[in-house]
Amino acid sequence: MRQNKATVSKVDVIALFTDFGLHGPYTGQMKAVLHAMAPGVPVIDLFADAPAGNPRAAAYLLAAYAVWFPAGTALLCVVDPGVGGARPALIVEADGRWYVGPGNGLFELVERRARASRRWDIEFRPERLSASFHGRDLFAPVAAKLARGDAPPGRQRNDASDRRPGWPDDLAEIVYVDHYGNAMSGLRAAVLPANARLALAGRPIERARTFSDQPPGTAFWYENSNGLAEIAINQGRADQVLGLAVGTPLEVLP
Amino acid sequence: MRQNKATVSKVDVIALFTDFGLHGPYTGQMKAVLHAMAPGVPVIDLFADAPAGNPRAAAYLLAAYAVWFPAGTALLCVVDPGVGGARPALIVEADGRWYVGPGNGLFELVERRARASRRWDIEFRPERLSASFHGRDLFAPVAAKLARGDAPPGRQRNDASDRRPGWPDDLAEIVYVDHYGNAMSGLRAAVLPANARLALAGRPIERARTFSDQPPGTAFWYENSNGLAEIAINQGRADQVLGLAVGTPLEVLP
Amino acid sequence: MRQNKATVSKVDVIALFTDFGLHGPYTGQMKAVLHAMAPGVPVIDLFADAPAGNPRAAAYLLAAYAVWFPAGTALLCVVDPGVGGARPALIVEADGRWYVGPGNGLFELVERRARASRRWDIEFRPERLSASFHGRDLFAPVAAKLARGDAPPGRQRNDASDRRPGWPDDLAEIVYVDHYGNAMSGLRAAVLPANARLALAGRPIERARTFSDQPPGTAFWYENSNGLAEIAINQGRADQVLGLAVGTPLEVLP
Repeated sequence: MRQNKATVSKVDVIALFTDFGLHGPYTGQMKAVLHAMAPGVPVIDLFADAPAGNPRAAAYLLAAYAVWFPAGTALLCVVDPGVGGARPALIVEADGRWYVGPGNGLFELVERRARASRRWDIEFRPERLSASFHGRDLFAPVAAKLARGDAPPGRQRNDASDRRPGWPDDLAEIVYVDHYGNAMSGLRAAVLPANARLALAGRPIERARTFSDQPPGTAFWYENSNGLAEIAINQGRADQVLGLAVGTPLEVLP
Repeated sequence: MRQNKATVSKVDVIALFTDFGLHGPYTGQMKAVLHAMAPGVPVIDLFADAPAGNPRAAAYLLAAYAVWFPAGTALLCVVDPGVGGARPALIVEADGRWYVGPGNGLFELVERRARASRRWDIEFRPERLSASFHGRDLFAPVAAKLARGDAPPGRQRNDASDRRPGWPDDLAEIVYVDHYGNAMSGLRAAVLPANARLALAGRPIERARTFSDQPPGTAFWYENSNGLAEIAINQGRADQVLGLAVGTPLEVLP
Repeated sequence: MRQNKATVSKVDVIALFTDFGLHGPYTGQMKAVLHAMAPGVPVIDLFADAPAGNPRAAAYLLAAYAVWFPAGTALLCVVDPGVGGARPALIVEADGRWYVGPGNGLFELVERRARASRRWDIEFRPERLSASFHGRDLFAPVAAKLARGDAPPGRQRNDASDRRPGWPDDLAEIVYVDHYGNAMSGLRAAVLPANARLALAGRPIERARTFSDQPPGTAFWYENSNGLAEIAINQGRADQVLGLAVGTPLEVLP
């Protein structure tokens, strides 16, 4: 048992990454558990609209946004279309950040890109586990336990059946469309050639530094504030003009 | 006057149940009042999209979700189409939880199902009471007063004109549609026969344990994580496929 | 240097006024910065759906809602279509409230209506400044510095190039449409004649005290809870019935 060593990076903030939407009771009930079990630990809504039911697209989004948080952050991650079924329930520690959620590939890119990582099967079982809301009943209590300094309530996992070696290192698809209609891809801008063009259904899109460099109405891509290649239109909605949604494929032109 | 005895269950968290939507200033202004008057008390967004202007549907939703919170929770509840009119303003204590909001039937099911409850007419009046936003000006200060340990600022209410004895114990209607398109009814699963079928416009829907038991595309109902009968489609949107919205009637088949 | 005198009104709460939408990572990343740099200071979501990319409409909305907060509030304001371009980055102190955001007119009405105000050019530069997200990288750290009692990290600004003297004192346009379909104008009700009528495309709309005074389905305007003239329909959606959106012009009838 070397689990106690895992607690050297104390959890002092919890970030939520879910596909629950902000409406409805789901996020609130998770926060109620966190406040009750780990009072005083700040809880940050990162994404409540991660790709719904799509752990693959969500994995690329999570990997890009999680690393912006300092070591000592717990990311409570619930994109869990298989809830109530056989998928495992995991804790992953990667570069000092903690991830709690379903073992359905959601942490694949986080683990693949980490310098160092460890993983546990959650063995904690709540008094009452609903069939449909493990976020509230299982994952939130585990995140709260980490936040109050407990050792990970599980055993180290050696089974790699939840890993997804076939997924690419970067995903040439839209993984998120924001409030302004800008569309983030699963491609890190840093891995693309400096003057790479992206193509949508054969239509090439040039790179720009930022919005204010572009004439209104022109489609372009740029490195967004978390390093992803993002397609946008200055003073326009790229999603509507270009027909973009989560899952829309892109090409990187040579 | 036995009101001080009501404060034996200390309020240590405030949950919000409103039809304000999360956008706009309404929830934020209520939270600003709560933070100013009861600093340090956690405030949880439970529902900001309770059935808009529909205290009857909201009453069944509230009763199902409020009991999940521990005694000592104050629920600040604003579904208030009659704001500015003659409806009373109430505090209800039921099984150790506190409810603050309009006397328009919103607390009917909470009170009816409670083992013990008491009720007060709010007598507190703020310096400035707007005609349209009692959530901010009246109900939030009262919830804050309870959270800092004050006695309920009102007098015990004996008038039952706000009660709704004609409403059923369970409501065979959709009371909430969530982010995934799942549709909650006002029926508690525990009061239905084990193999009950629900019917929508004559079309029967079978019971299932949870999503992962069902083939994609099949409509089913299940007991959701708060005990309500909920209609869903695995990997689909029940609201769109079945034409469900708040108010859609159901039948319980014999 | 008289900047330290500016800190006499201590910042004890931070309110967010942005056009980010509540979804996506933007508000969460700003809050993560605020929590990390100014732990324990409450952060209130006021508007996340201020008029998108429209600092002029947003300026009238902000001026109406900011004054509701007590002195000692910092308003972190991001409606910033020129991010990455040449617009200045400002701190404004007006009547004891602090405003941090882009110098694009967003604070014009706040400053014009203040009894006393001062302004600074932000000179703080973060280690890493993204081209597209100054809310997170520049404005949130500055708001956090004010919240922990630092002097404004800038120099007093004498340049008035960011002021908008040509904008009217009140704006006869819709500046916000809420969750219920009610449409706020940029007109303060207090500056209108007591029985003023507003007109939409020539159609006159009468004043009422509040919703419950009106028969269902009738369009009216009233002074909303923050003093703006707001167009509504009791039990109806004014935006849909009357075709209202941000930017729709109104007339004040004589």
